[in-house]
Amino acid sequence: MRTTPAYSVRLLVELSHEPGVLGRFAAAVGAVGGNITKLQSLEFNDDRVVREFVVDAESEEHVARICKTLGSMEGFQILEAKDLTFHIHEGGKLEIVGRFPLDDTDMLSMAYSPGVARISTAIAEDPSLAWQYTGRGNVVAVVSDGTAVLGLGDIGPLAAMPVMEGKAMLFKEFANINAIPLIMNTSDIDEVVDAIVAFSPSFGGINLEDFSAPRCFEIEARLRDRLDIPVFHDDQHGTAIVALAALKNAVKVTGRALAGLRIVMLGAGAAGTAIAKMLLRAGVEDIVMFDSRGALHQGREGLNDEKMWAAQHTNPRQLSGSLSDVIEGAEAFIGVSGPNLLNRDQVLSMADKPIVFALANPTPEIMPDEIEDVGGVIATGRSDFPNQINNVLAFPGVFRGALDAGATCITEGMQIAAATAIADAVGDDLAFDHVVPPVLDRSVAGKVGKAVAEQARKEGVCR
Amino acid sequence: MRTTPAYSVRLLVELSHEPGVLGRFAAAVGAVGGNITKLQSLEFNDDRVVREFVVDAESEEHVARICKTLGSMEGFQILEAKDLTFHIHEGGKLEIVGRFPLDDTDMLSMAYSPGVARISTAIAEDPSLAWQYTGRGNVVAVVSDGTAVLGLGDIGPLAAMPVMEGKAMLFKEFANINAIPLIMNTSDIDEVVDAIVAFSPSFGGINLEDFSAPRCFEIEARLRDRLDIPVFHDDQHGTAIVALAALKNAVKVTGRALAGLRIVMLGAGAAGTAIAKMLLRAGVEDIVMFDSRGALHQGREGLNDEKMWAAQHTNPRQLSGSLSDVIEGAEAFIGVSGPNLLNRDQVLSMADKPIVFALANPTPEIMPDEIEDVGGVIATGRSDFPNQINNVLAFPGVFRGALDAGATCITEGMQIAAATAIADAVGDDLAFDHVVPPVLDRSVAGKVGKAVAEQARKEGVCR
Repeated sequence: MRTTPAYSVRLLVELSHEPGVLGRFAAAVGAVGGNITKLQSLEFNDDRVVREFVVDAESEEHVARICKTLGSMEGFQILEAKDLTFHIHEGGKLEIVGRFPLDDTDMLSMAYSPGVARISTAIAEDPSLAWQYTGRGNVVAVVSDGTAVLGLGDIGPLAAMPVMEGKAMLFKEFANINAIPLIMNTSDIDEVVDAIVAFSPSFGGINLEDFSAPRCFEIEARLRDRLDIPVFHDDQHGTAIVALAALKNAVKVTGRALAGLRIVMLGAGAAGTAIAKMLLRAGVEDIVMFDSRGALHQGREGLNDEKMWAAQHTNPRQLSGSLSDVIEGAEAFIGVSGPNLLNRDQVLSMADKPIVFALANPTPEIMPDEIEDVGGVIATGRSDFPNQINNVLAFPGVFRGALDAGATCITEGMQIAAATAIADAVGDDLAFDHVVPPVLDRSVAGKVGKAVAEQARKEGVCR
Repeated sequence: MRTTPAYSVRLLVELSHEPGVLGRFAAAVGAVGGNITKLQSLEFNDDRVVREFVVDAESEEHVARICKTLGSMEGFQILEAKDLTFHIHEGGKLEIVGRFPLDDTDMLSMAYSPGVARISTAIAEDPSLAWQYTGRGNVVAVVSDGTAVLGLGDIGPLAAMPVMEGKAMLFKEFANINAIPLIMNTSDIDEVVDAIVAFSPSFGGINLEDFSAPRCFEIEARLRDRLDIPVFHDDQHGTAIVALAALKNAVKVTGRALAGLRIVMLGAGAAGTAIAKMLLRAGVEDIVMFDSRGALHQGREGLNDEKMWAAQHTNPRQLSGSLSDVIEGAEAFIGVSGPNLLNRDQVLSMADKPIVFALANPTPEIMPDEIEDVGGVIATGRSDFPNQINNVLAFPGVFRGALDAGATCITEGMQIAAATAIADAVGDDLAFDHVVPPVLDRSVAGKVGKAVAEQARKEGVCR
């Protein structure tokens, strides 16, 4: 376990004002395994000082243990302990504000009655003006039914909302897109599709999020069919775009090419299927996909439509062995499955300089520190290791580009263009531990947006 | 016609830098009927100066005429003319932003992955925590299908969006509520209701807007039945609340009482019906309602459900004459119909100090200046006359109170409480030309919210 800001506690502590007390406090925090990341002095007296500390811990239980230990010691007293992650979520993470103040009657007359009637009339006469005179052209709905939230599964729409709000923050922060988090209390495919279609004139694009497989495939396909705005299931395509970007750079640093690359993929859900499709489209020829029951091949019984597709289009040698059998000699592993499903011996049996993308969240298929001596390219979904494969590198730029171009859909070509732009954004920093740009690199979304918009125009899929 | 900021133009003008030119410019604007409301100097040279003017006009044609006249004169040159109402609508009027910055990996770890999983897990275990840790408790959906927009009628959802955005701005500005403007591309009652219900876990309340009558009655009733969050059709109830508030004060200044007051109402659509219901509930006994075919009484054929209700519950003497017949001797007129449908003679035939609420927008049933000598209380929906009956006095506070109290609905009692709070907010300023507070009085929403929340708690309709 590692300490993480996800389990951070803000402590308000009164300490006696004498030399050495702060040192003793810090030592006590360290002794119980906490990590002080922020310190601020709030009040000084002759004999007391009040300080605010942020301490990262490993778990809720660890936070409790830290507080208990500190509380029992001499020389300081904990006045308040606040779980920071819960604290910042109080009241939600978003705000909807006017783009200008409504502080006098003139503004009211223009932005609302009677002036707004002129805009409404103009749009009634020429509906395409809605793209210019309403926010639609910069609004994306972030929609979920809560059936496959993070690694938590079907926890319901209300529990999905914090994730949707977080996603909306990222849309704004990285691409200046106004994203509306919306959750649905139905998971019936017909009802989901009809409701989204009913509200679709409100949006410039629709980002589907955390819909479970295989429902997500049909929901996305039906919406794409019925709507002329971009529809994008991020769990599939966002992940696929960033995985392809990382793989492009990983083959480069290991002296390989996508064509001929032997890939083993563990996980055949929404993300796995989308990655496989995208890799094939990008020129990969040899992928063997595994679900929880083994390799997907045409001899397997009871495959659903998507898995049947995979059996027919991947696994060119129609292998049917175990993961240990098939991974031997493979050059790349891509995991979008669950925690600790790959072991060190399996990695050691791969080709030299293996490419290992262990993308399960929050616990990867194998922890990078178990194989850091192997000399390969290791990537995970985590922020505390190098090569973080995070959708945030893709979705803000993908929608930025689609909206800017007035695209009516997001084609495979636009997705490949996004992957290429992400890979290229690494530039001269390319290295084994640097096959994707850092998540907080704000230049990436702009580059991705430009590439996606260009591709959309090239393909002629714009209004 | 009057000049209005709704038809204002921002002119960038280069004038020769010599005494008297500005005066000549201003005189020219005035001569053609324009009204300079803002002036700013942007650039000075030895011989030229560039100034920005905002000029209010009466119509688009008038704006064009002003620009043409000024353009043909000596001594100044129009560099740019921008229609301000269209200008401020460019790109829409709203923005969705994070409530804190996401500028380091610590914040990202808390607000998004992995920290957000803790919040999702907590809500999955106790769904009521969604009210605390997501934005739901302060989010209102402002929903329309565009079938009855302002006075413009069925102009479609896209054309309704600027109104919804304006409403959302008002929600934020007056009550700090995050309002999401949503438009629907169906006007089928079943589809409308199902889609709103499907997305309802995203919202703390639903403000229906500009749905045509009689569909609006059924849509609202069905939603109230299926949802346990407040549903409020503002065109009905917002208007009714403010009308009742104004009437309470109007009877006070004219020395009357609601009981026994003889009211004639013109207009039996959504607003008229809602006003009638509310007035009856508040103690009014004698209302005669007219639709376009005459007085509503039980002898009339072909009345729809709502009008049948009105025929049965209003018009105690079951009058069936013309408006001119019935208005004679009446003490109050309430119009929610169309332009110029009431004339001066009819007003003169009313009781002394008549109460005339001519609420049709933008052109009232009678212009106040036609009857300002009559000595009554005159109210309209317009900002350019005293006593503006505007829903913005009601809906922000009504939802503020409902959300603060965790109300599951908005009862008639809560609406009456809102009306009373609005009436009381006038305080010592009460006068014939001051029966409602000014629209921009920011204290009103807070007072209304407090009264509504108190009433909700008193009635026990809170979560």
